[in-house]
Amino acid sequence: MKYIALLALSLFINQATYAQLSNTELDSLEIRKIYDMSLLNGKSYKWLDHLSNEIGGRLSGSVDAQRAVDYTKKELESLGLDKVWLQPVMVPKWVRGAKEFSYVESAPGSTRNINITALGGSVSTPEGGTKAQVIEVQGIEDLAHYGEAQIKGKIVFFNRPMRADLINTFEAYGGCVDQRYAGAAEAAKYGAVGVLVRSMNLRLDDFPHTGSMGYGDTPVNKRIPAAAVSTNDAEYLSGLLKIVKTTEVYMKINSSQLEDVKSYNVIGEITGSEFPNEYIIVGGHLDSWDLGDGAHDDGAGVVQSMEVLRLLKEIGYKPKRSIRVVLFMNEENGLRGGNEYAAVAKKNGENHIFALESDSGGFTPRGFSFQTEKSKFQQFLAWKPLFEPYLIHSFTIDHGGADIGPLENGNIVLAGLRPDSQRYFDYHHASNDTFEFVNKRELELGAASMTSLIYLVDKYGLE
Amino acid sequence: MKYIALLALSLFINQATYAQLSNTELDSLEIRKIYDMSLLNGKSYKWLDHLSNEIGGRLSGSVDAQRAVDYTKKELESLGLDKVWLQPVMVPKWVRGAKEFSYVESAPGSTRNINITALGGSVSTPEGGTKAQVIEVQGIEDLAHYGEAQIKGKIVFFNRPMRADLINTFEAYGGCVDQRYAGAAEAAKYGAVGVLVRSMNLRLDDFPHTGSMGYGDTPVNKRIPAAAVSTNDAEYLSGLLKIVKTTEVYMKINSSQLEDVKSYNVIGEITGSEFPNEYIIVGGHLDSWDLGDGAHDDGAGVVQSMEVLRLLKEIGYKPKRSIRVVLFMNEENGLRGGNEYAAVAKKNGENHIFALESDSGGFTPRGFSFQTEKSKFQQFLAWKPLFEPYLIHSFTIDHGGADIGPLENGNIVLAGLRPDSQRYFDYHHASNDTFEFVNKRELELGAASMTSLIYLVDKYGLE
Repeated sequence: MKYIALLALSLFINQATYAQLSNTELDSLEIRKIYDMSLLNGKSYKWLDHLSNEIGGRLSGSVDAQRAVDYTKKELESLGLDKVWLQPVMVPKWVRGAKEFSYVESAPGSTRNINITALGGSVSTPEGGTKAQVIEVQGIEDLAHYGEAQIKGKIVFFNRPMRADLINTFEAYGGCVDQRYAGAAEAAKYGAVGVLVRSMNLRLDDFPHTGSMGYGDTPVNKRIPAAAVSTNDAEYLSGLLKIVKTTEVYMKINSSQLEDVKSYNVIGEITGSEFPNEYIIVGGHLDSWDLGDGAHDDGAGVVQSMEVLRLLKEIGYKPKRSIRVVLFMNEENGLRGGNEYAAVAKKNGENHIFALESDSGGFTPRGFSFQTEKSKFQQFLAWKPLFEPYLIHSFTIDHGGADIGPLENGNIVLAGLRPDSQRYFDYHHASNDTFEFVNKRELELGAASMTSLIYLVDKYGLE
Repeated sequence: MKYIALLALSLFINQATYAQLSNTELDSLEIRKIYDMSLLNGKSYKWLDHLSNEIGGRLSGSVDAQRAVDYTKKELESLGLDKVWLQPVMVPKWVRGAKEFSYVESAPGSTRNINITALGGSVSTPEGGTKAQVIEVQGIEDLAHYGEAQIKGKIVFFNRPMRADLINTFEAYGGCVDQRYAGAAEAAKYGAVGVLVRSMNLRLDDFPHTGSMGYGDTPVNKRIPAAAVSTNDAEYLSGLLKIVKTTEVYMKINSSQLEDVKSYNVIGEITGSEFPNEYIIVGGHLDSWDLGDGAHDDGAGVVQSMEVLRLLKEIGYKPKRSIRVVLFMNEENGLRGGNEYAAVAKKNGENHIFALESDSGGFTPRGFSFQTEKSKFQQFLAWKPLFEPYLIHSFTIDHGGADIGPLENGNIVLAGLRPDSQRYFDYHHASNDTFEFVNKRELELGAASMTSLIYLVDKYGLE
């Protein structure tokens, strides 16, 4: 009954010739099988449980990143794919060291602890910590306004919040994250001794959110420590500074940048039966920040990508093209895995026609973004009615994803799964990015949506 | 810049005359104002915090239901509406009494506690509890198959799970909830001594989910106690019964049905400037089950509905028609408030043209359902492009809502906010339906979506 209703809907929407209707009919049925398998006999949630709770945070170069490599390789091997292998890549190894410590002091002895976390890549503070007066700014562009006169010797507190009025929270993130990435390098130019950045979080809570930062061409001896502060403590500090301008902050960071170490992208392949040198890839990143378990970022994308190949096998689909799952290493602080995969693909003359990334959390899927020109986008738009029974409505031309970005060559289509974005920054890069905040059904709907798109690209190719 | 882009989009979509474009332009701007106000200066989340954490569960006839009446009346009075009043209604008063207790016993002395909760309206067990062997069935239709021979003297365990393959979880709920509502009345016909029902929950966890049940025309002395069991314990019991068919369950329920008591619908109105006898209402239900705080069900709908009137005032919109917020009492176990509101409206000859209900949780809004014929639905469809910048994609012809149902007269259009449904039954009627599981942005996006629809209906009327 349900299948018939679905078919009727598809027939109604797609006013085309009989032959085309027949394909639409078959596609409706195949896609229904994919969703059923994901929701009734899915494996993504169990994999995520292991990755989050048995392994945990997987920062590049860590023992747990290596355990994640070993685990996902073993699991992919159990699926009966044609090939599973590790692709070596050297990755940076930054370690946090002992947990950070910080307090504000509004008058001698009148202190209150605040929740901070070192940004990934930050230098440590001196042995005894850094203590200085604080100057609050609303962004990098404010630094020139205050100048060295008011900044030198101080800790710069970047406090521009994410804009709550933007519907897509990634847009709000994009409007703030320069403070986190480049704030320390820019503040150092004016003689700042440290940087505190308001966490990239739309919610008021106590979790500091880490994330990557870079010093650019700042000389090593001019590099200053940088930490994120929780949104609640950012509000507190900002309020205090309005009353007591001489408020000082003490911060202690214990991080180190070690030598690069060898790590791996994990790759599995179903070799194409008709066009084995046309490659379709689906992936997420295996590394994560160290504070939480990396359940949403990007454990979800990893297990969904693995599930794509498992689901295709389970429904008995034989791909015409070679379909690979790629679990990228080091997206968070280097993109070494993404760069290496693209370099090897180019060297081997592999013709990659399509790459799909899931790296926006394991939330209810809303659609896909396609990094391509308008003419090619039409082919995807024509498939949209097949997704509407699953409440996938949003097909847009936009960015594909970070790890697949290096594959861009003017021909390949890059695409990203676009889940609902409202809750993502509640957890992103924070210690509450844990398994319990991933909903099983939302995760599975995402995996099924990705599999359906890969199925269509494989079956029809891209024109 | 953003407004201009939105306008351009609206212009592009709506290929109509200049006059119409001008309206679309204005509507785009008004709707943007509504969303901005909700996301940047919303009050819904603060109200929900109070309703959930300061008041808590609000079962009809309870002291806390009365506190919720007093609180929401006071808050509505603070908004400067034209009228705020209480509409008296007699409601049933069922009380749970001391927490339920239950265990399974697979052999004498070999027991394990299980998590149960009395269904709302259930009679209590005898003083010493009810202990009996268990027969598992997959639904009411199974009872005739087993017959009195196998059911008499036993506890019937209804264990048909919600279907995970259905994308809309309310559809899965609809396919199971007859077991909860009518299971006891039906099982009593075969001589059962009690009923256990698998919780209406797609997730495996330890929370039992209550909900309404009825005895129909079962004589008082034949009524048997009925409880929900958590999904984890339903799985456990089912597994145990496969091994030990003589497994017994002990259950103790301490509930009472008291005399009806007086309660209230809470109503606020902005009186229309042009058509004061054309009424548009927006509402949710103020009562909730007693286990959690009723944050999603239906605290969210209550505060969103209050927010609709506040937002219209905040953006300076003067309604042509009379717009009412109605906070209904007793949706969960009687619908007395909804029935009373419709009866009074009819008696007073008030011409209700549109009613919008929010009672599906405070999750990311995905669209609206409209209970109307196809011709009227076209007017709503024409407005859909105005909602797409806010990722509202789903306008369907479907059920409006329980509380507004009694207003149906063949002319009024009933509508329901349709949030994402994936997580709803994780919390529905269970002790974890608490404030912390409502996301502020999701709640606020819902309130803004509702306000925008009410604005359009008021401005243009319904044809």
